[in-house]
Amino acid sequence: MTLLYEGKAKRMFETDDPFILKVEYKDEVTAGNGQKHDFAPGKGRLNNLITSEMFERLENAGIPSHFIECINDTTQMVRRVEIIPLEVVVRNLAAGNITKRLGFRKGAEFAPPLIEFYLKDDALGDPLINRAHVIQMGIADNDEIDELKKRANQINVALIDIMEQMGLQLVDFKIEFGRDTRGNILLADEISPDTCRIWDAKTGENFDKDVYREDTGSIIDTYQKFYEKMEATK
Amino acid sequence: MTLLYEGKAKRMFETDDPFILKVEYKDEVTAGNGQKHDFAPGKGRLNNLITSEMFERLENAGIPSHFIECINDTTQMVRRVEIIPLEVVVRNLAAGNITKRLGFRKGAEFAPPLIEFYLKDDALGDPLINRAHVIQMGIADNDEIDELKKRANQINVALIDIMEQMGLQLVDFKIEFGRDTRGNILLADEISPDTCRIWDAKTGENFDKDVYREDTGSIIDTYQKFYEKMEATK
Ligand SMILES: Nc1ncnc2c1ncn2[C@@H]1O[C@H](COP(=O)(O)OP(=O)(O)OP(=O)(O)O)[C@@H](O)[C@H]1O
Ligand SMILES: Nc1ncnc2c1ncn2[C@@H]1O[C@H](COP(=O)(O)OP(=O)(O)OP(=O)(O)O)[C@@H](O)[C@H]1O
Ligand SMILES: [Mg+2]
Ligand SMILES: [Mg+2]
Repeated sequence: MTLLYEGKAKRMFETDDPFILKVEYKDEVTAGNGQKHDFAPGKGRLNNLITSEMFERLENAGIPSHFIECINDTTQMVRRVEIIPLEVVVRNLAAGNITKRLGFRKGAEFAPPLIEFYLKDDALGDPLINRAHVIQMGIADNDEIDELKKRANQINVALIDIMEQMGLQLVDFKIEFGRDTRGNILLADEISPDTCRIWDAKTGENFDKDVYREDTGSIIDTYQKFYEKMEATK
Repeated sequence: MTLLYEGKAKRMFETDDPFILKVEYKDEVTAGNGQKHDFAPGKGRLNNLITSEMFERLENAGIPSHFIECINDTTQMVRRVEIIPLEVVVRNLAAGNITKRLGFRKGAEFAPPLIEFYLKDDALGDPLINRAHVIQMGIADNDEIDELKKRANQINVALIDIMEQMGLQLVDFKIEFGRDTRGNILLADEISPDTCRIWDAKTGENFDKDVYREDTGSIIDTYQKFYEKMEATK
């Protein structure tokens, strides 16, 4: 099978079916646009299993995604899409870059949830952009931007519910969307502790990549605990 | 008279009338959020005369501002407003930070003109923000943001026309708005070669602060030439 793209966290392979890709989750972990970089045995499995389960639950909540099926511990099959080069970030509470960049106090509530678009461009450092930039760059038109925001809000509501059942609070998350061959917008990429910021509802303990970013715990233990909480609410 | 605020380019004084401020334009020039800093004798006079004339022409084009009158070479009287802490930037062509930040080629055309909001916060480095941030921070509501954009577009049309008559091309500019005591939104601050990027329509020569930022010419000679072109089209 042809390797289509090797990223920091996953390998995307073409398959016999031009509309289907095989995604292999890797045991690598990076932070700060690749500045911090480590090998974390077992992470690929955890993120594949978590993402698969999340996409299934979202599907049940009426939210379509690229996900087809999980075929083994580290591999899933997905619908091939043309990725819309935006990192769509949804924030319920302030944490991470928004506290430094805009001075929000960590934990400050956003009501309604804040939606941001970052240009997916590693060379530029994934800069924040606004609606006019998205349109000017030809990334999406006005109606598509409305659609992306609507989906992002729906996904937020569904994920908040999923996390709440696990005793967790969804602080923020990053998603990517793509267009299938007919131009339909589909949720793509992954939803895992790599791409979400999640706090214990009671203790505030991190269940996400911040334990790696901030060197406050074992990433594998953390993701394993998240996985177990998720399985316990199945 | 009480000094209300001393900025990098102007001093704002209270007057006997609580609704009126006296603005004294200084001979200082700074760039890069104050990192580059110099004394430029004559700049205060030029920016005061240019801003006064610009506000008068905008008034004639139906665009209200804080400007009342120019009382001497370096001083003007303005209506006191509560400044909305946004730098509203309008871009017709790509230049300056947008070429570095988002990779636009210098001179690339924006159609429609691009409007950006930067949070007026020196400590944070005046970061770009989007509509949702503006609302979340309580800076302006949705309708006010629409109004700011409408005004920014009107001002752009009027300024393009003024510059065209001078044989110049308006590349981009930064404006500030404020609310008067009745909540009306007024154009405030200044409009000068400090706050606009202006190119000669034929040669591309800079008629703005870029000659200082990039050390490519005398700021006073440049602003003086701009002033003369403006006076010639009176
Ligand atoms: N269904 C899909 N079809 C095509 N490409 C996809 C699909 N889902 C995700 N991708 C893309 O595949 C890549 C996944 O790899 P990975 O997440 O490791 O990349 P990365 O190192 O994070 O780099 P990037 O900044 O591109 O995300 C991403 O570029 C992602 O946008
Ligand atoms: N009509 C007005 N009423 C009240 N304040 C005003 C008015 N017009 C402008 N200002 C404010 O007065 C100050 C002008 O000073 P100056 O332009 O030198 O500031 P600066 O050093 O550029 O700093 P800043 O980042 O605050 O603009 C600015 O803060 C501006 O927002
Ligand atoms: Mg990725
Ligand atoms: Mg100023």
